Amino acid sequence: MTKENVAKKPRRREPPQFSRAEFEQRVERACKLMTSARLDALLITSEANMEYLSGFVTQFAWNTPTRPWYFVLTRTGKATAVIPEVGLSNWRETSWVKDIHTWPSPRPENEGLDLLKDVFSRVKRRYGQVGAELGAESRIGMPVADLLRLQRLLRPLSMVDGFHVLRTLRLVKSPAEIARIRHICQIAADTFEALPGFIAPNDTEKDLVRKFQADLLMRGADKTPYTAIGSGQGGYESIIMGPTTRRLRKGDIFLIDTGARFDGYFCDFDRNYSIGKTSDEVRRIHDLLFRATDAGIKTARPGNTAADVFKAQARVLTDAGIELGNVGRFGHGLGKVLTEPPSNKIGDETPLVPGMVLTIEPNAMYGDGKILVHEENIVITQGRAKLLSRRAPRDIPIITF
Amino acid sequence: MTKENVAKKPRRREPPQFSRAEFEQRVERACKLMTSARLDALLITSEANMEYLSGFVTQFAWNTPTRPWYFVLTRTGKATAVIPEVGLSNWRETSWVKDIHTWPSPRPENEGLDLLKDVFSRVKRRYGQVGAELGAESRIGMPVADLLRLQRLLRPLSMVDGFHVLRTLRLVKSPAEIARIRHICQIAADTFEALPGFIAPNDTEKDLVRKFQADLLMRGADKTPYTAIGSGQGGYESIIMGPTTRRLRKGDIFLIDTGARFDGYFCDFDRNYSIGKTSDEVRRIHDLLFRATDAGIKTARPGNTAADVFKAQARVLTDAGIELGNVGRFGHGLGKVLTEPPSNKIGDETPLVPGMVLTIEPNAMYGDGKILVHEENIVITQGRAKLLSRRAPRDIPIITF
Repeated sequence: MTKENVAKKPRRREPPQFSRAEFEQRVERACKLMTSARLDALLITSEANMEYLSGFVTQFAWNTPTRPWYFVLTRTGKATAVIPEVGLSNWRETSWVKDIHTWPSPRPENEGLDLLKDVFSRVKRRYGQVGAELGAESRIGMPVADLLRLQRLLRPLSMVDGFHVLRTLRLVKSPAEIARIRHICQIAADTFEALPGFIAPNDTEKDLVRKFQADLLMRGADKTPYTAIGSGQGGYESIIMGPTTRRLRKGDIFLIDTGARFDGYFCDFDRNYSIGKTSDEVRRIHDLLFRATDAGIKTARPGNTAADVFKAQARVLTDAGIELGNVGRFGHGLGKVLTEPPSNKIGDETPLVPGMVLTIEPNAMYGDGKILVHEENIVITQGRAKLLSRRAPRDIPIITF
Repeated sequence: MTKENVAKKPRRREPPQFSRAEFEQRVERACKLMTSARLDALLITSEANMEYLSGFVTQFAWNTPTRPWYFVLTRTGKATAVIPEVGLSNWRETSWVKDIHTWPSPRPENEGLDLLKDVFSRVKRRYGQVGAELGAESRIGMPVADLLRLQRLLRPLSMVDGFHVLRTLRLVKSPAEIARIRHICQIAADTFEALPGFIAPNDTEKDLVRKFQADLLMRGADKTPYTAIGSGQGGYESIIMGPTTRRLRKGDIFLIDTGARFDGYFCDFDRNYSIGKTSDEVRRIHDLLFRATDAGIKTARPGNTAADVFKAQARVLTDAGIELGNVGRFGHGLGKVLTEPPSNKIGDETPLVPGMVLTIEPNAMYGDGKILVHEENIVITQGRAKLLSRRAPRDIPIITF
C-alpha cells in the first residue's frame, strides 16, 4: 500500500453557504421575469439553472445521461422536483424544494413524462405558455425526442423558449455568488503563481496540466473541467487545445487557461510563461495585450456595453497595427457556466450593470499563425471594475530550469 | 512563490494512440448501420459521438455552450466538420477529417446553420432521412431552437432519431478502447489502494475527495468528473451524493464511487471502507454483495442478456432476504460516457457479446434507510468475463487512525 501523501497546500477560507434568503430572492426575480415574458412556468433540465433555482447539487445527474432530472417553477413561485428515485436523498440534503415526485428510473419508455404532465396540469394558467431551455447558448438536459413528446402531452399549454428569462436572471450576480467566483479565481491565481515551482525539465504538456489540476484541487477547487494549454517555440497556435504529449523546452512560450470550479462557480483566466528569454516581438505583443486589458477594464463600467469593452481593447491593438485574434470576441460573462452572456464583441449591446462578472480577453495574431492571449476576471461596480484575482505580471514570467 | 512540489506518483504505461485504421473501421461500421436504419447521413453534436467518429479531442467545445460544433457523416463515408473558426487548429491537430467548414462564432443569429444547409444539400439522397441525436439517453450539443430551425432548413430531407445507430455502433468496444478503459480502471484501483495512506483524522468528505482526485490525476487520469462519496455512522444513505463538509470519524462506513477519465474513456467503480471495526450486519451485507458480484460476473457471458446479469445478482440478495437498493439497476454499459446502454435490469434483453464493457453493481438496503453498493468493471469475452481492475477485497477494509 502506498503511504505517500498527496502534497498539502495552504487553503483559503471558503465563503459561507448560500442562505435560504438567497434562493428566495432568485425565485422572486424569476417570477417577475416570467410575468414579463408571459410564461406560466419554467421547465428546467440543465445543471446551472437547476442548481441556481433549487439549490440541488449533484455530480451524478450531469455525468450520466441515462436519467433526466426536471425542476418546475411556476410564475406564482410553486417549486416542484420530478426526479429519479435514486436521487431522493441527494435532493433532500441539498435543495430547499420539498415537493418531490420520483419514478423508478431507468424506465426508457417513460422517464418521468407522466409525472411532468400531472405537475403541469396543476399549474395556474394565465398565459398558456411554459418556458423551456431552447434558445441561444442553451443545452437541454433530456433527450430531444422526449422533449417533443412532452410538448404534445402539455397541450393546450404551449412550450416556448424560456432561456432568455434564465439568462437575464443569472446575468447580475449576488454578493454571495461573486464571493464564490472570487474564491476560485484566487485559488487559480495561487496555482499560476506556484507553477514555476512545480514545472520540471522534460515535462510534457500533459505532465504539467496534471500537476496544475492537482494543485488546484489541493488548494480548494472542487473540479478542474477546463485546463487548456498551448505551447510552441516562440509562441503557441491554439488557445483552446491540449494538453498533448509535446515536451516543453527552452525557447517555448506557453499559456494555461483554466476554468476551475468551486461550489458551482467558475473562474476563467489564463497566464503566459516563457521558458528562457523571450523575443522582442513577443515582449511587444505581451505588453500591448496588457495595455488592451487595462483599456477593457477601464471601459467595463455602467453606461457602457459589452461591445464598448471589445472596442476599447481592440483599439489598443489596431492602433499598434496588430491583427486581432480569431476567438471571435474579447471576453464574456462568467458564473455558473464557463462562458455566459454577454459577448464582448461588435453588436452585443448588453448594458453593463453592477454585479455582472466578465472576462477581459484580448488576443492578437503575430508571426506565422501564432496567437497570444491575456485574460482577467472582473466584476462590474458603480465605479471602476474590480479584478477578482491578482493581475498577471506586466512582463511575461521567465522560467529557467 | 510556493516551491512545494505536487507529490509524484508511480505512472502506468499508457496505451498507444488510436490508429487511423481504428477510425476507418468505426466509419465503415457506421455506414453499414446507417444503411440498415435507412439514413443518408448522421448529424453529430455531442462529445462522445464526435470524438468516437472524427477523433476530434477538445475540452473547449464541451465546457462552453456559446458555440455549437457539428460533424456530418454520410452513408457513403463522406465526413465533414462544421465548426467555429476558433477551433480550426484544434480540429486539424486531432482529427483525421480534412473537410472543414468554419464560421466566425459567436454569431447568435446564425451559428453555422447556413453551412450545415450547404453540406446537407450535397448529401447523396437515397432514403431522404438524416439521423440526429434525439433518442433515449441522448443529449443534443446545440440549442433545441436551432435544431428545429435546421430541421426546416434541411427539407425535403427529414430529421429522425439516429441515436440508436450510434448506441449500437459504440456498444462493442475495440481492443484499443478496452485498453483505455482498463488503463483508467487500474489507475483508479491504485488510488483506492493508496487511500488508507492519505486519509487523515478530521478529514471532511470534501478533504478526502480533493486528495482522491489529485491522486488520480498524478497517477495519470486526465479528468475526474465523477467522485461521489457517501459516509455515515454504520453506513451511508446515498451513493450518488457528496462530497459534503461532514467529518469522517470512527464508526463510519464510507464509499467513494469514481468516474475518472483517460483519453476519452471512463472507469466507473466504487470501494467501501470502514473507519474502525464494523457491525456484523454490515459485514454480512458486504459479503452478500461480494457474492452477488460473483454471480453477476459469472452470468455476464454470451448467450445471456443484461436482464440475466441483474437477475443473477438479485437472486443472491433476495434469497438471503435482503431488500434491493433503489438505484433501479445492477450495473450498465461503460465507455466514452460514464453510463451507457445496456441497463442490467428486468426488461433489458440486450444480448451480451464479446467486447461489451459492463459495470456489475449490486446494492442492498439495510438498517434505517442505509444502502451498501459494490461495483466492478468487466469486459465480456467468449468465455468468462474479465475484470478490468483488481477486485475489491472480500472483507471491507478497516481504516484506523
